[in-house]
Amino acid sequence: MNKRLSLDTYREGVLEGNRVILGQAITLIESSLGTDIEIAAQLVQALLPHSGNSIRIGITGVPGVGKSSFVETFGNLVLEQEKRLAVLAVDPSSQATKGSILGDKTRMGKLASNKRAFIRPSPAGAHLGGISSKTREAMLICEAAGFDVILVETVGVGQSETAVRGMVDFFLLLMLAGAGDELQGVKKGIMEMADAILINKADGENITAALQAKSIYQNALHLFQPSENNWKIPVLTGSALTGEGIQGVWDSVIDYEKQTKMNGYWEQNRANQRLNWLNDQVDFLLRKAFQTHPIVQKNLLDQREKVRNGIVNPMIAAAELMSLFLGK
Amino acid sequence: MNKRLSLDTYREGVLEGNRVILGQAITLIESSLGTDIEIAAQLVQALLPHSGNSIRIGITGVPGVGKSSFVETFGNLVLEQEKRLAVLAVDPSSQATKGSILGDKTRMGKLASNKRAFIRPSPAGAHLGGISSKTREAMLICEAAGFDVILVETVGVGQSETAVRGMVDFFLLLMLAGAGDELQGVKKGIMEMADAILINKADGENITAALQAKSIYQNALHLFQPSENNWKIPVLTGSALTGEGIQGVWDSVIDYEKQTKMNGYWEQNRANQRLNWLNDQVDFLLRKAFQTHPIVQKNLLDQREKVRNGIVNPMIAAAELMSLFLGK
Repeated sequence: MNKRLSLDTYREGVLEGNRVILGQAITLIESSLGTDIEIAAQLVQALLPHSGNSIRIGITGVPGVGKSSFVETFGNLVLEQEKRLAVLAVDPSSQATKGSILGDKTRMGKLASNKRAFIRPSPAGAHLGGISSKTREAMLICEAAGFDVILVETVGVGQSETAVRGMVDFFLLLMLAGAGDELQGVKKGIMEMADAILINKADGENITAALQAKSIYQNALHLFQPSENNWKIPVLTGSALTGEGIQGVWDSVIDYEKQTKMNGYWEQNRANQRLNWLNDQVDFLLRKAFQTHPIVQKNLLDQREKVRNGIVNPMIAAAELMSLFLGK
Repeated sequence: MNKRLSLDTYREGVLEGNRVILGQAITLIESSLGTDIEIAAQLVQALLPHSGNSIRIGITGVPGVGKSSFVETFGNLVLEQEKRLAVLAVDPSSQATKGSILGDKTRMGKLASNKRAFIRPSPAGAHLGGISSKTREAMLICEAAGFDVILVETVGVGQSETAVRGMVDFFLLLMLAGAGDELQGVKKGIMEMADAILINKADGENITAALQAKSIYQNALHLFQPSENNWKIPVLTGSALTGEGIQGVWDSVIDYEKQTKMNGYWEQNRANQRLNWLNDQVDFLLRKAFQTHPIVQKNLLDQREKVRNGIVNPMIAAAELMSLFLGK
């Protein structure tokens, strides 16, 4: 299970686009073993000059919105443009749902069997900070392997959308219309993070409701300030089942790429994302060092309980824990 | 300027409601001098058992929305209920705008001259994490001094709303109507953080526009999921100038207090806020220790530049900086 290759073998294999080695390389970076972490970091660093040449697209939406069907339909449409497509998933939930996002292979049969597509479920059960870093590294590796379009899928849970938004070029929100669903499924703050909204399942009897929802969302979007890249968020309707309207999503992605590469936002956003990644990773390592510090561990629960009950001022508790951590 | 009293003098003075000593105590906790920080922490800890008995209300809105006038009118209304009122401000902007929020004393003349009111501008220029902690401590001290209602004012800048939202019981968003303003002033994500929205300046010719804006905001709020406390966010219209509708804000606060004390959310929210404060403070101290570490400092800019330009993988940069920090 822990069969490992040499750094050079990983590097050459990935650069040649060898899918088996690509998969093993991602397994390597997902590993939490000390020796793996070291080689993984070297591998990512070695592949860095070959990365960056893709369009990174994040996709989110509540369960049942049809993400898997969308990825299948949209993915095949991308492949028709002579592109190479990688699909990654960020699922911060527990081991119990491991692979749930992409586990339903039957819905992605056509995509999974295409040689120019690569599908990879997320590592489950890890800390979100860890997952984010690993998904970011997996993206870089896929880019070095020659993939032009990378889809990062996430479920509408916790902070995963924010994390994914912070690592992609374009963020797509899938929504549903009908039966008051448009009033239910909107997680606070998600709508404003989107670069495009697709109302999925706009087929058959659903079409009227989808158009109504489109109008509602467009009005709601007017309430938000224009984003810093001057992009006007399109609200689209479509059906991953029939394929209707899905081309519009790809057109939006291309429009967005053109416009933001022209005004400099594209590269600026990526540079900021790299710096945020550095900051996130430093914060993550600092917290990890703090939480795994033996003397801090011994006192943390007790201090938290006192703070929760209002017995100890959080400032004092924090200062005492920090003294323990810094060994002062 | 740095005249300091003994811990006991501060404590007794605050508990007696001595406004001069209260002011000096807040100056003490705002100080960044090492000796002050130590006494301040002891003072807050000593006052902790006497704190917590207030309604903490956060107020935000864009510049020009009439926050100062609102605080004056609303504050006097609170004083008429035989309450004691403290007004604090969080302004994360630079020294240049020091006291800008509450500097305009002429608008708060009546309030400032009332013995049951206490008005305190924010410390300007400090790190937001620092300001938040200090505002939180200032609230506790004001509570120990017997204030029943605490207003915390913030400007619509950066993360200050989120910070204030995380330290109050009730968060009020002031907005404007008319001339398309309702489409402009909404900062992303702020509307969903509110426990009530007041459309201010709903007087004279503005009334029609205010009612239209009310309807727009109410519809937009329908798009959001109900919050965990089951509170339905009211959208109110009013005028701080004429006083019309301001009682409605106070009624909403009281309704909210009753409802959330009944369902347990009030205390649960405060316990969570204390734990978040602890976490924030630990993160703040960890980052501070990291950034002021001499060897980290020597290398940080260089590493950031390499990460920004895509030359070094953020994971490697973070790991190297952490090794320097931990002395490994």
